[in-house]
Amino acid sequence: MSTKKLQVGVAGLGRMGKRHALNFHQNVPRATLVAVSSPDAGERQWAAENLAPHGVTVYESYDDMLAHKGLEAVCVASATSVHAEQANKAIEKGKHVLCEKPLGTTVEVSQTVVDAAAKRPDLKVMCGFSRRFDASYRDAHAKMQQGLIGRPAILRSQTCDVLDPSGFFVAYAQFSGGIFVDCSIHDIDLALWFFDEETTKVKSVHAVGITAVEPDLRKHNDRDNAVGTVEFYDGRIAYLYASRMMAAGQEDSTEIIGTKGKLSVNLLPAENHVKIYTPGGIRQELPQTYWDRFRAAFTTEAVEFTESVLEDKPVPVKLASAVAAVKIGAALQESMIKGNKIWFDEQGNRTEKAQL
Amino acid sequence: MSTKKLQVGVAGLGRMGKRHALNFHQNVPRATLVAVSSPDAGERQWAAENLAPHGVTVYESYDDMLAHKGLEAVCVASATSVHAEQANKAIEKGKHVLCEKPLGTTVEVSQTVVDAAAKRPDLKVMCGFSRRFDASYRDAHAKMQQGLIGRPAILRSQTCDVLDPSGFFVAYAQFSGGIFVDCSIHDIDLALWFFDEETTKVKSVHAVGITAVEPDLRKHNDRDNAVGTVEFYDGRIAYLYASRMMAAGQEDSTEIIGTKGKLSVNLLPAENHVKIYTPGGIRQELPQTYWDRFRAAFTTEAVEFTESVLEDKPVPVKLASAVAAVKIGAALQESMIKGNKIWFDEQGNRTEKAQL
Amino acid sequence: MSTKKLQVGVAGLGRMGKRHALNFHQNVPRATLVAVSSPDAGERQWAAENLAPHGVTVYESYDDMLAHKGLEAVCVASATSVHAEQANKAIEKGKHVLCEKPLGTTVEVSQTVVDAAAKRPDLKVMCGFSRRFDASYRDAHAKMQQGLIGRPAILRSQTCDVLDPSGFFVAYAQFSGGIFVDCSIHDIDLALWFFDEETTKVKSVHAVGITAVEPDLRKHNDRDNAVGTVEFYDGRIAYLYASRMMAAGQEDSTEIIGTKGKLSVNLLPAENHVKIYTPGGIRQELPQTYWDRFRAAFTTEAVEFTESVLEDKPVPVKLASAVAAVKIGAALQESMIKGNKIWFDEQGNRTEKAQL
Amino acid sequence: MSTKKLQVGVAGLGRMGKRHALNFHQNVPRATLVAVSSPDAGERQWAAENLAPHGVTVYESYDDMLAHKGLEAVCVASATSVHAEQANKAIEKGKHVLCEKPLGTTVEVSQTVVDAAAKRPDLKVMCGFSRRFDASYRDAHAKMQQGLIGRPAILRSQTCDVLDPSGFFVAYAQFSGGIFVDCSIHDIDLALWFFDEETTKVKSVHAVGITAVEPDLRKHNDRDNAVGTVEFYDGRIAYLYASRMMAAGQEDSTEIIGTKGKLSVNLLPAENHVKIYTPGGIRQELPQTYWDRFRAAFTTEAVEFTESVLEDKPVPVKLASAVAAVKIGAALQESMIKGNKIWFDEQGNRTEKAQL
Repeated sequence: MSTKKLQVGVAGLGRMGKRHALNFHQNVPRATLVAVSSPDAGERQWAAENLAPHGVTVYESYDDMLAHKGLEAVCVASATSVHAEQANKAIEKGKHVLCEKPLGTTVEVSQTVVDAAAKRPDLKVMCGFSRRFDASYRDAHAKMQQGLIGRPAILRSQTCDVLDPSGFFVAYAQFSGGIFVDCSIHDIDLALWFFDEETTKVKSVHAVGITAVEPDLRKHNDRDNAVGTVEFYDGRIAYLYASRMMAAGQEDSTEIIGTKGKLSVNLLPAENHVKIYTPGGIRQELPQTYWDRFRAAFTTEAVEFTESVLEDKPVPVKLASAVAAVKIGAALQESMIKGNKIWFDEQGNRTEKAQL
Repeated sequence: MSTKKLQVGVAGLGRMGKRHALNFHQNVPRATLVAVSSPDAGERQWAAENLAPHGVTVYESYDDMLAHKGLEAVCVASATSVHAEQANKAIEKGKHVLCEKPLGTTVEVSQTVVDAAAKRPDLKVMCGFSRRFDASYRDAHAKMQQGLIGRPAILRSQTCDVLDPSGFFVAYAQFSGGIFVDCSIHDIDLALWFFDEETTKVKSVHAVGITAVEPDLRKHNDRDNAVGTVEFYDGRIAYLYASRMMAAGQEDSTEIIGTKGKLSVNLLPAENHVKIYTPGGIRQELPQTYWDRFRAAFTTEAVEFTESVLEDKPVPVKLASAVAAVKIGAALQESMIKGNKIWFDEQGNRTEKAQL
Repeated sequence: MSTKKLQVGVAGLGRMGKRHALNFHQNVPRATLVAVSSPDAGERQWAAENLAPHGVTVYESYDDMLAHKGLEAVCVASATSVHAEQANKAIEKGKHVLCEKPLGTTVEVSQTVVDAAAKRPDLKVMCGFSRRFDASYRDAHAKMQQGLIGRPAILRSQTCDVLDPSGFFVAYAQFSGGIFVDCSIHDIDLALWFFDEETTKVKSVHAVGITAVEPDLRKHNDRDNAVGTVEFYDGRIAYLYASRMMAAGQEDSTEIIGTKGKLSVNLLPAENHVKIYTPGGIRQELPQTYWDRFRAAFTTEAVEFTESVLEDKPVPVKLASAVAAVKIGAALQESMIKGNKIWFDEQGNRTEKAQL
Repeated sequence: MSTKKLQVGVAGLGRMGKRHALNFHQNVPRATLVAVSSPDAGERQWAAENLAPHGVTVYESYDDMLAHKGLEAVCVASATSVHAEQANKAIEKGKHVLCEKPLGTTVEVSQTVVDAAAKRPDLKVMCGFSRRFDASYRDAHAKMQQGLIGRPAILRSQTCDVLDPSGFFVAYAQFSGGIFVDCSIHDIDLALWFFDEETTKVKSVHAVGITAVEPDLRKHNDRDNAVGTVEFYDGRIAYLYASRMMAAGQEDSTEIIGTKGKLSVNLLPAENHVKIYTPGGIRQELPQTYWDRFRAAFTTEAVEFTESVLEDKPVPVKLASAVAAVKIGAALQESMIKGNKIWFDEQGNRTEKAQL
């Protein structure tokens, strides 16, 4: 094992950017965080206080950070709307890229990253689908591959955020691509992973949604609760639920149902091993955010991305599947807004209605 | 409280008929099982051995049983295809009726029972949606009504049977009305109950299905795994899963998600309070059949039906909602087979596409 | 199967007496409740309203009830202090007896019932250790007997009541025999059952106790929280906890640990299948009383006692083990109060200290 | 925050030593592992391959490691029998010390470390009670301190290892101090922590034990299953169970019962969030070792020890409580072997019997 350390920069220092920066700084022994960038003065101030003392250079301009001497890899953790552009620039400059999901809110934009990466097979380019790095999901996937549940046929998965009474997610909806592209993208990626992304092909999607707590989402063609169904040509179904109004905490759970068994992941979320007995019953607390639930997965993601670069191994998640996920997510979003069922032929093109 | 006992007859002595007969015989203090009927000689033989010694008369002909002296009420537990006919005959003869679900496999047939009952307001006629009598569902419904979860907006519910390797359910599919009418009817009824059947109106339904273990089901236009979505005009969604291939046992679970909280029922099924620790982990066993899970609910159902007759109170489940449930179930089945989304206008008529 | 019904009388109409009376009246198809007795006018008034209309005769005097024409069996559910006396009278009059636990608060008193029963082998006399009739405990016991956990070596069991702020249990302590005789007797009985009451012999007992919420218990040589250890000669240990101050509900749980596995019963109590999600977490409610938890077990107990009489089969719980349980319970209580460890020789006599 | 890194050496490279070395190397951003020592050639070979490439010097002699240039702190992770000696040498040489539990197997030996540390108040000396660094235990402790459960009165805690069929623990018992000093020491420490080690005083201890699977343990005055009771002068009780024969995995659970509520930690252990549904039921896997369960706690322990040195803050666990724990553990071990109950007066001296 080489003792060389990967020189990493993080683009964006918002909520997720800060976390990625600290993650690379503290939890990835084989990487060194050398630079960060943000157009936001307040975010740069945070970095000046928390990262600069440890030798991290703080940039206002992303382009300037790309020119940082010795920089080898970039973690793109900025707003979704610039993911693709920043990833593409980094690739152009010969940097390895770990890009937060999604690559973009449309298939077209997302595909540009795949195309850029295709021209530079020497670079490692990965879209960070964090759940693939979670110990529980990995355990479930391994058990499935060992045949424990026979052939997986049905996948139920949900990404449900605790209600944020500030209404932050209304403004956020303007750029997020909508609830299916922003939240359910994780569940779609899980379906592609468990159903084998190499071979499975989407046949139809259908979705409905409501605004139970935040009617203003309709201005941005979004909903706060949404249910989607994805049918695949090989006789499998994924059905998804996304919500912005959980009361108790973050509830991201998944069931994979096969011909001989079932695996569930996080069916009954818990913050830790404590149970609280008081008048009223026995209670367990929940993680309150996606990060709280998947903190360790983000570390594993960064560690393995780093390792794939340093040891020149394939990245653990193929880039193409990120486009496949956006394709399904965007179609679900469209179905939810327009009310129609959307069909694809076996080549992946939109079609009027599939042969049943 | 009167000490008079209701004289009850049970029609049909198949799997469910035997259970209903024993239930009325053993568990309903205010009822006396006086007669049973079955066209099947083997079933009558069982009754001759198990019920006749306790004073129960065994009939081959349903009509003859209806003429049994002193008979006041009939529990229709025969094949679904004769539910409506037998219920209607009983009503005509002035008998109170507890009819197994569904009233029929189509709206038209089901409606005949409602019409017949309407002519005899002196009689108690109820369709036995057993889950409404389950202590856990009742507790959840009461908590919802107390406002614990705000306004209920999303209902997820599933009725999932353990895999029966005999393939019994293939032949059964010929007459059952299909998986949405036979299984999901319970979940649909729950949606009507929790969303308030008096006011909620279905807007659209959509379903997909697969045959993961039993391709022969396609001969009867049925599937072994099915996912359905039901949209309501008041901004609510129910989404349903039904399956015939559970490995571990009967898995009937429900979540009701409101604007301020959530209630789940039987998310992680358990046969009892025992956990088994062996190499491999900690294990809990599951009920293997619907009856095992809802045995006590069937008793409560019979007890309360009996009470409603003896004390001339309204039956606990309104008959009309049984037709509403079949309407949704049959539309889901059609959507699954044909592939199209089905719309209803606010008057409940089929329409091309609703105004979004 | 005979269709004859057992004519049963219930002695005592306090909290438990009412329950036993209603249980025999409503839930035991092969028994008929024909008489009840209570020296308390208020209790008799309750019976006059709730039982007399169904043909049950209400007596002030227990002796008079014993003389009720046709009476065949008595359920003794009166105060613990008269259990033995009433049981013995019933036996003398040739009645079968189901006696609430414990037979008495001392070995001597309890033994009188065994002696009386020994003279009338034609009668069925049983002490009602309700947990032996609980479906979960029975499942655990059957699994143990099948060898699932190897040889059982350690049993942990607790009987923990929800805090009754009325302080009722202080007055109650005067006659109950103390927390080990009143509560832990169930756990001791479980140890005898799982460790095989035919062969296992107690070697030593030790206990400590505190008054965390009710110092007045000390007046009656009792405690509100107590921990006891029971050592057996065949190399097994039972350790017990009893409490009067649970906050969330009734918590009666048991673990049986064997050389190859473990079984737990009710480790995490739940009232039903509902979980409640609100800010603060996911919550489940608990049964609030012993009866709420073991209601069905009391029915099974009454049904099986009735069957043992009607079909002249051995009673399901041997009477002698009730004396063995009191012996251990009373010794634990003494150890807790005096502070000393108490030893028994292999013949069951008190001894200074066993040979180690 | 200083960016200086603490120069750490690890003594001992056995099972725990390797883990501590890798832990300081990979997971403690503010520490640098600079040296390790082991008298065992095989262990040094492992270090030569895994640590030396990263700049870690490997020593055969502990004394030589202490002389390593720039070394500031030592983690003592060698055999229990040399814990105290190595800790004392390090203190003498002016090194900060993190010592694995227990300091020694007797009070006398353990006290030497406290005495040595007392002479060097400039040094940070801590005994590593890992559970105090576990997120769940910390959450429970914080909730208790907030008053959520009233006054804690009863603590039940167990440390139960999965059965190691190699019988390793027989040889190990020769030096471990016995099951109460080796395993239950964790539970005793929890009792001291939750009951407030500053004020609570032990009054009596009593223990019993058996050899259910490994009779050879008797040669070393040890047992494979043991139950102990610890009574405190302020009216509190801790009761403990330790075992070497769990079938399913590591089972370390704790309940803290207060006058107004209860907290449980890890009552139903789980390896992760996965549940497995197959014929036979729903199953969850367990951590197989103490390290698997408490891996993150060991990291927190090392991080906080490092921080206490770098920032000259008090260590998070007071050294004196490590002696108090050994005192109770050794007394329990003695009680188990000799069969007697052991009493202490309020000054902590052995006494014949306390005033009750």
